[in-house]
Amino acid sequence: MANRNDFRERVDARYEQLSGAHRRIAEYILANANRAAFMTAARVGRAVGVSESTVVRFAAALGYPGYRHLQRALQEGVRAQLTAAERLELTEADEDAPEGVLERVLRTDMDNIRATLQDLQPEAFRRALDIIERATRVFVVGQRSAAAVSYYLSFYLSYLRPHVIPLDDASIMFERLVDLGGSDAVVAVSFPRYSRLTYDVLKLARDRGAARVAITDSVVSPMARIADVSLTAHTPMVSFADSLVAPLSVANALITALALRRRTETQRTLEILERIWEQNSIYLLDE
Amino acid sequence: MANRNDFRERVDARYEQLSGAHRRIAEYILANANRAAFMTAARVGRAVGVSESTVVRFAAALGYPGYRHLQRALQEGVRAQLTAAERLELTEADEDAPEGVLERVLRTDMDNIRATLQDLQPEAFRRALDIIERATRVFVVGQRSAAAVSYYLSFYLSYLRPHVIPLDDASIMFERLVDLGGSDAVVAVSFPRYSRLTYDVLKLARDRGAARVAITDSVVSPMARIADVSLTAHTPMVSFADSLVAPLSVANALITALALRRRTETQRTLEILERIWEQNSIYLLDE
Amino acid sequence: MANRNDFRERVDARYEQLSGAHRRIAEYILANANRAAFMTAARVGRAVGVSESTVVRFAAALGYPGYRHLQRALQEGVRAQLTAAERLELTEADEDAPEGVLERVLRTDMDNIRATLQDLQPEAFRRALDIIERATRVFVVGQRSAAAVSYYLSFYLSYLRPHVIPLDDASIMFERLVDLGGSDAVVAVSFPRYSRLTYDVLKLARDRGAARVAITDSVVSPMARIADVSLTAHTPMVSFADSLVAPLSVANALITALALRRRTETQRTLEILERIWEQNSIYLLDE
Amino acid sequence: MANRNDFRERVDARYEQLSGAHRRIAEYILANANRAAFMTAARVGRAVGVSESTVVRFAAALGYPGYRHLQRALQEGVRAQLTAAERLELTEADEDAPEGVLERVLRTDMDNIRATLQDLQPEAFRRALDIIERATRVFVVGQRSAAAVSYYLSFYLSYLRPHVIPLDDASIMFERLVDLGGSDAVVAVSFPRYSRLTYDVLKLARDRGAARVAITDSVVSPMARIADVSLTAHTPMVSFADSLVAPLSVANALITALALRRRTETQRTLEILERIWEQNSIYLLDE
Repeated sequence: MANRNDFRERVDARYEQLSGAHRRIAEYILANANRAAFMTAARVGRAVGVSESTVVRFAAALGYPGYRHLQRALQEGVRAQLTAAERLELTEADEDAPEGVLERVLRTDMDNIRATLQDLQPEAFRRALDIIERATRVFVVGQRSAAAVSYYLSFYLSYLRPHVIPLDDASIMFERLVDLGGSDAVVAVSFPRYSRLTYDVLKLARDRGAARVAITDSVVSPMARIADVSLTAHTPMVSFADSLVAPLSVANALITALALRRRTETQRTLEILERIWEQNSIYLLDE
Repeated sequence: MANRNDFRERVDARYEQLSGAHRRIAEYILANANRAAFMTAARVGRAVGVSESTVVRFAAALGYPGYRHLQRALQEGVRAQLTAAERLELTEADEDAPEGVLERVLRTDMDNIRATLQDLQPEAFRRALDIIERATRVFVVGQRSAAAVSYYLSFYLSYLRPHVIPLDDASIMFERLVDLGGSDAVVAVSFPRYSRLTYDVLKLARDRGAARVAITDSVVSPMARIADVSLTAHTPMVSFADSLVAPLSVANALITALALRRRTETQRTLEILERIWEQNSIYLLDE
Repeated sequence: MANRNDFRERVDARYEQLSGAHRRIAEYILANANRAAFMTAARVGRAVGVSESTVVRFAAALGYPGYRHLQRALQEGVRAQLTAAERLELTEADEDAPEGVLERVLRTDMDNIRATLQDLQPEAFRRALDIIERATRVFVVGQRSAAAVSYYLSFYLSYLRPHVIPLDDASIMFERLVDLGGSDAVVAVSFPRYSRLTYDVLKLARDRGAARVAITDSVVSPMARIADVSLTAHTPMVSFADSLVAPLSVANALITALALRRRTETQRTLEILERIWEQNSIYLLDE
Repeated sequence: MANRNDFRERVDARYEQLSGAHRRIAEYILANANRAAFMTAARVGRAVGVSESTVVRFAAALGYPGYRHLQRALQEGVRAQLTAAERLELTEADEDAPEGVLERVLRTDMDNIRATLQDLQPEAFRRALDIIERATRVFVVGQRSAAAVSYYLSFYLSYLRPHVIPLDDASIMFERLVDLGGSDAVVAVSFPRYSRLTYDVLKLARDRGAARVAITDSVVSPMARIADVSLTAHTPMVSFADSLVAPLSVANALITALALRRRTETQRTLEILERIWEQNSIYLLDE
């Protein structure tokens, strides 16, 4: 994850070299951080009284590959402090045509995966895989929107190894953990604003000495701090909610890598399931 | 989605221009389609007795931007006929290092989103949005792995409009649909191998005259054929399972676009939720 | 469960001894079995042209302790063939005052438990307990209304022993059973009209050699025929649906008996849960 | 529900008339309330040094129809203060034979229904029915073991009227309630030790002016105090957990009474469902 003060630090480091127009842009942004983080270059230009291309060159002068990167650095800095309602309020009104939103969201999700690939430590990925492969039992937890990722992960992990236990019913999850022990593992999916319940599950796992993998936004997130291994993924989205696309892609990678490690057993499982699916008409027949 | 016979058609159209080595590669691939679809350029080269770079140039000669694109065209052609077990068997054994898998999966997911952005009709997106906004009730259905996407979509849609009903319990979904009528809408998420149950729900919706949005892989999928609007997304993954990353990104786009259309109501809802979340300690407090 | 032809057999055996009025009642009932099964004594009397007390004495002449017992024998005979809509149509219109319904339903449920206590074989109960105690894993399945009982049973069983796995998501239950083996057990709750899915799970368990306990309506039900042990419970209810009160009471008995058998381990589990519940504010504090 | 100090009050009122042996029994019980509540007459006799029949006569001298009634009055008094682990510890060790447990549990459940029938106010039942029938939407909530009853109730209510919404996912139930208003109703099932989450839902309903029905143990329970109408049911069970059999029977009565009130619409719904069930092979075919 980008440093939350990345923009301020760059401005500080290069302030002396900045032109007058660039300094005015910098000052405007620092004074209106929450709002500016969600403004286009054109709009920042109008607010400051310079052209759009001046704003774009300003981003380059700070070392950002493009204005979009500057904008995302700003968003990283403010998102954690905003409520969902505030974030929606800040979203640009002049980009609302459905086609524009579609393109913007899908491009942002590609960027999120790209940034995830850059930041995620291969060593962490390997260790997470080891934990998931070797544990006696693997409990998978994610609440609210993150439940989409934890459900997907536990659905496929149950093809790949025995004793995968989804903690999918919030009202009885602690009962399922009553005999959690040192040979078990918990995989927790949680992004800002972190679910208190998921945190409590991870804390219990730590107290019991169980291995802990967090799929979260940063190695300094509350989840990461009580996990053994953190798989970090980028989730920024110019919307009232974050995007769980990159975390889902990381879940895909875990599933694929474990399937290859346990290729023989998995193939046997899949063949058994194939017969079961057929007997029970789970899928549409080919036409 | 790419035409399933795309590779064969290109070979047919350009066969006369192909060199002898290229013809041998083409023939090998056509004769071993299932296996070749999952082989690297180097491996195809070894099988045919030519160099890896000859195979890469062969892809270019057929008009593919790279070997990866040729490979994906082949995979499109065979995937539908393969069982999960067969697909796993065909996955390259020599790419199993976790780091390699991580990179390969995340890059494939980026490609999937990119291809989705190219193929998804903006007009279809706009019509899907209209249906979801205007229906009296919106039922959301997805089974098995697709349930991750349908859960995520219904979770956020319920912030954006009243009467969003997740069909999340397969054993009682038809009871929930008993009074489904012409002013309601059903959003169905289904990818190959299509769930029979999701198909049956969509068929019931058609019989009742309800509006139908399919999030699926192709405008000619069984789901698309009985839907009013299809949002197509790419899901190929070199693994035993497909990836639902691009469909999740499309769900993100629907959510974001609807939030912007219904900005005022959504903001009010989010403010109410904010107070409820706080009163019930749903999130971790900021540290 | 009462023999489905119990009424006819009694009439056949005693026909010669019946008075003319009693014969007319018998003939009316045999000719209108579906309807008569849900008529009061007074109403049968009006239909035949005799007094209510003559109908009550007729029941006694056939050896029933009361008219209610005759009526229930008739209901046993017809219920299996009626749809829910037909059953509702047959329900007495003149007993619709809420107070009357409340009393009638609660009394019928007491009768159901009493009849269950008479018919359930203690030996079967003991064997079911042995199976649930000794299995490596216990899978619990019940669909639709029976899911209330299977949920309750698996909720408490998970306090009493490890590896209790609720098959609570119909769309992925076969995946959870992929490695089901001879040391596992399946407990299935199913009453008429039996769920096809529950039956398929029990059949799979039989094919795998897993131990099978059915909580069902009769030792000759389709579920009982493929189970090792059947715990039978009475569910008749003068309504469009059967009552699952007696099966829930049987589930209570299983839970209580297992808690006493495993008293020491259970007490330890409960003490651990007590601390977890407190830490996580699961319960309201005493005022 | 019996007065929690019922035993003490009876002893106070009749102390002068009690024999010396009866006074010793009374004093022993008052001094060992928690333990004595779960002791048989024989065991109390041994502890005090009198015969079992003296203890039974003591119960009669206090006006209890039998020793069992005295014992239940004691249990009412202590249960609320005991943890599950303490209750299990107090359960008689000498009654552990499975057959004995089976009989004891089923008889206790019959007693629970009988006591429920005596105590539940018909007027409350009628008002609950009115609320459920007339509300724009009916939300049904129950957590943990009570979820068995709330699931069952919402399953059948959805046959009987539109817009029945089960709050079955604890992690997102407040989102479903975001637009809860004065024309809606909430039905909450909660027994000691009351779920905090269910209480919070009921409190939100009160703040929004929604109609509130509690299915709970007493008209003075925390749930009852913030409900418009309370349907009380008896749940005592000599086990580590309470029994939800009587509450389930009350749910049955609500369902049956509503089906009769809405007979025509319900019949139409059931006919539609019948066709759907058949088309989708929900039930086993008759053999």
